[in-house]
Amino acid sequence: MNEFDIVDEYFSDIGSASGVELGIGDDAAVLAVPEDVALVVSADMLVESVHFPHDMAAVDIGWRALASNLSDTAAMGARPRWFTLTISMPELDPSWLSDFSSGLRACAERYSVGLVGGDITRGPLTLSITVLAVQSSDALTRSGARAGDGVFVSGTLGGAAAALANHPTVPNTWIDRFARPQPRIELGEALIGVASAAIDVSDGLLADLGHICRASNCGARVLLEDVPVADGLKDCFPERWADWALTGGDDYELCFTVPSVRIPKIEALAQRVGLSLSRIGTIEAAEGVRLDPGAADWRPTAQVGYRHF
Amino acid sequence: MNEFDIVDEYFSDIGSASGVELGIGDDAAVLAVPEDVALVVSADMLVESVHFPHDMAAVDIGWRALASNLSDTAAMGARPRWFTLTISMPELDPSWLSDFSSGLRACAERYSVGLVGGDITRGPLTLSITVLAVQSSDALTRSGARAGDGVFVSGTLGGAAAALANHPTVPNTWIDRFARPQPRIELGEALIGVASAAIDVSDGLLADLGHICRASNCGARVLLEDVPVADGLKDCFPERWADWALTGGDDYELCFTVPSVRIPKIEALAQRVGLSLSRIGTIEAAEGVRLDPGAADWRPTAQVGYRHF
Repeated sequence: MNEFDIVDEYFSDIGSASGVELGIGDDAAVLAVPEDVALVVSADMLVESVHFPHDMAAVDIGWRALASNLSDTAAMGARPRWFTLTISMPELDPSWLSDFSSGLRACAERYSVGLVGGDITRGPLTLSITVLAVQSSDALTRSGARAGDGVFVSGTLGGAAAALANHPTVPNTWIDRFARPQPRIELGEALIGVASAAIDVSDGLLADLGHICRASNCGARVLLEDVPVADGLKDCFPERWADWALTGGDDYELCFTVPSVRIPKIEALAQRVGLSLSRIGTIEAAEGVRLDPGAADWRPTAQVGYRHF
Repeated sequence: MNEFDIVDEYFSDIGSASGVELGIGDDAAVLAVPEDVALVVSADMLVESVHFPHDMAAVDIGWRALASNLSDTAAMGARPRWFTLTISMPELDPSWLSDFSSGLRACAERYSVGLVGGDITRGPLTLSITVLAVQSSDALTRSGARAGDGVFVSGTLGGAAAALANHPTVPNTWIDRFARPQPRIELGEALIGVASAAIDVSDGLLADLGHICRASNCGARVLLEDVPVADGLKDCFPERWADWALTGGDDYELCFTVPSVRIPKIEALAQRVGLSLSRIGTIEAAEGVRLDPGAADWRPTAQVGYRHF
């Protein structure tokens, strides 16, 4: 089976072909970008045993690889349209490819994005995805937070990290948070003109809020008791829930800041997108992210935030 | 050193920032696509010991990784503008990163493309690049060849494959063909409205011409004596030159077809882009690529064309 047969068998017609003038099969794809939009581009690499466990089901790897990339453009308030995928794998494994592509396809269909190109080759199991999104207004960046803004986070945190820790009592809802993350695309779009800064929680809440603070030249105070935590996490893991909720990544919720005059809009916005949006703290002028109550009550058991090396 | 420090140190301001509204450092980049152009997208993955030798100089890996990707959009007649790069590497090696990024930077500057995003993580040495190009007219595809069209190839073939074979007498000019490929961007643009189909020679001439024939539902006859071969290759390797020139990949020349009425334009076009353009055969109605003289005089010592598995 050569690359062309593999593409035909597993990777043709994945997701939406909207705006695709020439799809997979030539030297490159040709796309029609709508007028008056900016193109928003994000790329990530996922390596087996680094970004996902060796024994993770291929169908979940397929969903998660795409969803985690869609989350980056969601954090900009952009609407993802297309993606490219490159894969290296040690040997041609039709069963793995079939499962992987079905998870990828389900995610692509759910979020109306289309696979427009890529490459598959021999090598250690590694995936790289580049997402192309469009945006008709100014992007939501990390750099617009100002002292006094409220700090918010969508949904709940800690479930994905708890699932990754692989404790036998972890419920399926948390496992789904790791295996089937839901990029907050609608929320990101709805936050345009409301939020002053946004980021997706992929490295861990404190680390990602720290990225907003550094980009915005400010700091933040977070109230531990206001951090929304996965259902049941506190009861099941009284010693570890705060660690997972504050420093575990992979939930792919959005953390965002809102100027105080616009905070009253958040409740209606939450209803509209069908997500809880919790205020967890406030942006402050002094640099750094402070947790309240502080280190006397909570100490991270792992280093704060995912470090790539 | 975390990912952010690595990006600052080695990957900031690589190439051209033209059209970059928001560059590296946020969740995604924001790009201004000119009006009335199509977006042309291509992605490739390069794995150590599969796509480049373990001992290849990092500076050359940097150039070659980008150049080989630019070649794909050049084959569509598009003008590359931006690219994303994801890297996994076993450990943080500042010396390797410094050399790699200088080769990458040199190639990006030479061809006026800008690095707009990416990822760097721990894992086996693997690179993935997605190139975004723009095109103001119809793309040059693989599917437009018709019986009677002339088959052409730019430059010379076989040098890169000879270099990869690593014989001690291989001259530097051939090594450069492997390490520093020159994507034929100007040629691709000039072929719009002239060529009926085009592809870049990355898998090997016969294999890549075969891709044109399959996409165009036709065949081709190639005259061995008309295939342009790297200077000195026939004399140095009388037994192997044909193999390298016909089935060796990596030269990144363009192979293209031209309807007979437009063939007279080719000479002036060659002068304009400063490249030799050699007619090597003719498109025929019968499927398959035939070599003249045939298999009695030449037998591939390796399988025809690069197979990904």
